[in-house]
Amino acid sequence: MNALGKQLLVEFTGCEPGRLSDPEFIAQAMLRAAQASGATVVTHSFHHFAPLGVSGVVIISESHLAIHTWPEHAFAAVDYFTCGSRIEMPLGLDVLKEALGAAAMDVVSVQRGAGIAPIPSAGLPRG
Amino acid sequence: MNALGKQLLVEFTGCEPGRLSDPEFIAQAMLRAAQASGATVVTHSFHHFAPLGVSGVVIISESHLAIHTWPEHAFAAVDYFTCGSRIEMPLGLDVLKEALGAAAMDVVSVQRGAGIAPIPSAGLPRG
Repeated sequence: MNALGKQLLVEFTGCEPGRLSDPEFIAQAMLRAAQASGATVVTHSFHHFAPLGVSGVVIISESHLAIHTWPEHAFAAVDYFTCGSRIEMPLGLDVLKEALGAAAMDVVSVQRGAGIAPIPSAGLPRG
Repeated sequence: MNALGKQLLVEFTGCEPGRLSDPEFIAQAMLRAAQASGATVVTHSFHHFAPLGVSGVVIISESHLAIHTWPEHAFAAVDYFTCGSRIEMPLGLDVLKEALGAAAMDVVSVQRGAGIAPIPSAGLPRG
């Protein structure tokens, strides 16, 4: 891959609204998703917004996994940004889809730093 | 805007490598960028990766602002995700461009939750 990073822009629709409103549930689902992908978790931070919705991010050695939820629309937007090719992002997304009870998952893949030659160690985690 | 959120995928090239390696400098620049946009900062987390590079995120009431740097390529990838129309993202990006000493800034805009009707309060911050 002639790029420094890869990012998946993921949209989950038809989710269980109660799950999307629960910051602890969302945090645990995101951590399980990162681990299922083989990512190394550095830290995480999740917040509940009144009256609805959760925002949060898991920082991993290989970049980040972020979520914003709209329970009132049964909708969640997820970003999964990684560098290197070691991380199995689809495995993490499968975990999230099941955890959120999503009816559908739409994924757009974007290259970041395209055209900038990766260094030889780019296949390894940065941390 | 018939979408729940808007996301800018931003790539800074020709940056000052020394700045991209300094987690405290990057954190302060990101916080200033969020504030310049009119965003409400909830929390932030920044990390230095050996031997090079910084990853971090600012969680704002209106979503998030994330960065990953590659000092060895004078390159930084930034994501600015917001809901509502109150945030002036370009003002924040101008702050970052100057702080990083970037020669160029490339911006791609993406709608998130497109086609899902925004609720009447979507123009207000969620927090």
